[in-house]
Amino acid sequence: MDKSRQPHQRVSLAGMHIDRTSAVPLHLQIAAHIRSGILRGAFPAGTQFLGSREIARELGCSRTVVLTAWDLLYAEGYLESTPRGSVMVASVAAPHAEPPSITPAAAPAHMSKRWQSLLGLEYETNWPSVFAPGAPDISTFPFKEWSRLLRQSWQNPREQECLDLPPEGHPRLRSEIANFLGSVRGLVCAPEEVVVTSGTSGALDFCSRMILDPGDEVWVEEPGFIEARWALTAAGAKLVPIPVDDKGLVVSEGIRRAPRAKLVVVTPSHQYPLGVSMHLERRLELLDWANRNDVWVIEDDYNSEFRHQDSMIASLRSLDREGRVIYFGTFSKIMMPNLRLGYLVANRRFIDGFSKGRARIDVHTSGIGQLALAEFMREGQLLRHLRGMRRLYAERRKALIDAITTLMPDDLSVSSAVTGLHLVALFTEAMQARMSDREAAASLKQAGIHVQQLSQNFLEAPTRQGLVFGYGRLHVEDAAPLLARIADCIGSRRRNAPTGPAISSRTVRTIKRG
Amino acid sequence: MDKSRQPHQRVSLAGMHIDRTSAVPLHLQIAAHIRSGILRGAFPAGTQFLGSREIARELGCSRTVVLTAWDLLYAEGYLESTPRGSVMVASVAAPHAEPPSITPAAAPAHMSKRWQSLLGLEYETNWPSVFAPGAPDISTFPFKEWSRLLRQSWQNPREQECLDLPPEGHPRLRSEIANFLGSVRGLVCAPEEVVVTSGTSGALDFCSRMILDPGDEVWVEEPGFIEARWALTAAGAKLVPIPVDDKGLVVSEGIRRAPRAKLVVVTPSHQYPLGVSMHLERRLELLDWANRNDVWVIEDDYNSEFRHQDSMIASLRSLDREGRVIYFGTFSKIMMPNLRLGYLVANRRFIDGFSKGRARIDVHTSGIGQLALAEFMREGQLLRHLRGMRRLYAERRKALIDAITTLMPDDLSVSSAVTGLHLVALFTEAMQARMSDREAAASLKQAGIHVQQLSQNFLEAPTRQGLVFGYGRLHVEDAAPLLARIADCIGSRRRNAPTGPAISSRTVRTIKRG
Repeated sequence: MDKSRQPHQRVSLAGMHIDRTSAVPLHLQIAAHIRSGILRGAFPAGTQFLGSREIARELGCSRTVVLTAWDLLYAEGYLESTPRGSVMVASVAAPHAEPPSITPAAAPAHMSKRWQSLLGLEYETNWPSVFAPGAPDISTFPFKEWSRLLRQSWQNPREQECLDLPPEGHPRLRSEIANFLGSVRGLVCAPEEVVVTSGTSGALDFCSRMILDPGDEVWVEEPGFIEARWALTAAGAKLVPIPVDDKGLVVSEGIRRAPRAKLVVVTPSHQYPLGVSMHLERRLELLDWANRNDVWVIEDDYNSEFRHQDSMIASLRSLDREGRVIYFGTFSKIMMPNLRLGYLVANRRFIDGFSKGRARIDVHTSGIGQLALAEFMREGQLLRHLRGMRRLYAERRKALIDAITTLMPDDLSVSSAVTGLHLVALFTEAMQARMSDREAAASLKQAGIHVQQLSQNFLEAPTRQGLVFGYGRLHVEDAAPLLARIADCIGSRRRNAPTGPAISSRTVRTIKRG
Repeated sequence: MDKSRQPHQRVSLAGMHIDRTSAVPLHLQIAAHIRSGILRGAFPAGTQFLGSREIARELGCSRTVVLTAWDLLYAEGYLESTPRGSVMVASVAAPHAEPPSITPAAAPAHMSKRWQSLLGLEYETNWPSVFAPGAPDISTFPFKEWSRLLRQSWQNPREQECLDLPPEGHPRLRSEIANFLGSVRGLVCAPEEVVVTSGTSGALDFCSRMILDPGDEVWVEEPGFIEARWALTAAGAKLVPIPVDDKGLVVSEGIRRAPRAKLVVVTPSHQYPLGVSMHLERRLELLDWANRNDVWVIEDDYNSEFRHQDSMIASLRSLDREGRVIYFGTFSKIMMPNLRLGYLVANRRFIDGFSKGRARIDVHTSGIGQLALAEFMREGQLLRHLRGMRRLYAERRKALIDAITTLMPDDLSVSSAVTGLHLVALFTEAMQARMSDREAAASLKQAGIHVQQLSQNFLEAPTRQGLVFGYGRLHVEDAAPLLARIADCIGSRRRNAPTGPAISSRTVRTIKRG
């Protein structure tokens, strides 16, 4: 449009592009065109447009459409009427003299310090690798039953079921979780002691904010679970790494390093990532110290349901008689990760404060799946699926351990601790002399195999070197071929030409994907 | 059990209660019984038990069960072997000399200051009242279609669909939201500028933590949306109330009161709760100031989809050319509240930082409903439902306004601003002279009718008095009877005996519920 036009010369819209195939109604397109022109300065204040009939004829639309566009722009303040009743661009709508000096590339950059800290923690996780620790196998999930129950729970719900759920979660799901924990985990709790969460990360986020003020200290296991650190960091906590030995968390070190900590986050059943079980004396030591110092303890009992019942170890919460232990569990592995459903078990006083606060932050965990999951559990589908997964994972674990001990006995040493979906292969001294686990992981990545280096799980200087192998998605027949590839890449018994078992095409695809 | 027993006398378990109907396996029951006894001091260190065969006979179970219980307790450290190979209570398992001095009633009480602040904000919201502001009508929702699509999306999903979703949300849902906003809201955006959230509260929580460090100032509208204050408070922000007049937020007051604020949260299309639309000059003033001072603006465009398109006002984001406005929307009203699904629209740089951080806190919004919702939108079901709801809500609003203007013309004055699911009835001067809106709400509550007092929405001393009426769930035929009851209770034209229209039985149930 020509800026040199006399302000009183009536403006035509003949050149405007109308998209009749667009979902955007015509009057909105017209209004957008004019609005944009006004803001760009193409239609200065005082500009008058042709009459609505003429514009309608120009654009090939009805007069009503044009008048509706006018009405909208009037209401927004872009247009006003002349004394004669014509339509004119309003004076207030004139843009500033200077064109915007900020280019999109230099768009607003302010970000809080705490968010910068959160983003600053660089780890590589969640790559689509067959060895991704903790990644479950989805292929045998009973989708037919699950989808049936989803439909069933939403076909004809009661009205109350559609409005906000209680922040603690659907009562039936709380009840099923309590039953499940009793029978599968030997953890006795009442439904009122169970809260439905959106997964461990989110639950840890809320608990951190409930228990800690910024700067407060928290004990974290060293090595320990990376993702837990994110939530704690986002809450502004000061993480104090506490070493883990063959009896689990070294409580005396915790007391020495951070005697004023307000929270302890542990994985006592099977320490992540090393797999050791926290010995009874350490558990009692921890609970005793926590009681005397008003400290909360979060027990992240990840993957407990995959361990065979005969080797099940009583939870820390079972030992706790002061209501000090907050027990975390998740459905991410036993159902599927994108469900984002989990639970915590705590005493009622904690749950009251937790729920009231969380309700004010995110209202409640998604309601679509809660009732369906309760039904899924009530029908016994979850237990049935769990039994199948236990067998499958046990087979895969065995295949992986066999492959490691057969193909890389001089380099890697596997603990016998059962963890559910991953294991740690520690570097032997000979291996450590040759390379760090970071170098090993880098070499493997170049060869197309992603394996997590153990040292990534340390906050401070790593005291151990090794590789963390997830096996949830590892097919039994691929274990040896993959380990052969790994041995070729970093093993002491490197071979120039592959003489090991032929690699299945699925393995090749796996390697390509991973 | 008798503590005076010789430590070497072998202990029987004959008195132990076995629950054969329990889901808890026998060996776990036995182990729990012994564990508990050890911790209570009933089985001191060195206590030996009868042989496994004898115990099996006593309890009426197999010897294997008893041996499995022993194995477990060995693994946990409660038992050890005697030199002769018998089972003995381990010395480390002895409990402390002093019995626990903390009773469950005095359970751990530590709670962070920030959580105390969050809980300290006392408001009454979310009561099950027909007048609850913002509560939508669920009765006409197409559950048949929705449940069909839920089932369809989970019958046979691709594996990738089950693992973690991207933190920005399912690509198809992002795409559908972009289309929806373009056609329904006249807001043009690319799918890459859309992020799926778990609802407005949660999105505000993340944005606050991303933009503000504790103590940073944020402008909030006065009166304004209570729930927004919770999330901002949880993030440690310093809320500065900025008045709203008939042109919307008084930007100059904001600049005067909090010139160093980092964030502004506004409801510019239809201010909550007053309903006024933010005038263009104010919008430009706000954006201009925000640009010059590197300030973010959150535009909460709640309920915009319920307003008729012909009166649709261009979003603040449409005016924003610096990528400074973060646009919030929700599906809570147009679908159902317990879905916990919403979205935000922002520039890509913001989205990168937001998504990377949120992924580290809660991974992503629940994945169960995202694909189903995308399909629901693609099939046109959402638009169809929306059209029906617009008509329904328009009828209800009209009925409510008619009732108010007919029955309480001297007390309440209703603005014509269309808000979607609620309206504000301001007190006339005469009404204000008689009572405060807090007193009015208290009287009504005693009469069994819950209506929110406008003054509750002020952070500081209220400058206006009135009542906030939700009408989303108000049946047209109940408007007059309910207003008659309200008039009876607090109106200037009080009547001793009800002479108004008969109250339907549904209204009576409604009043009882509310």
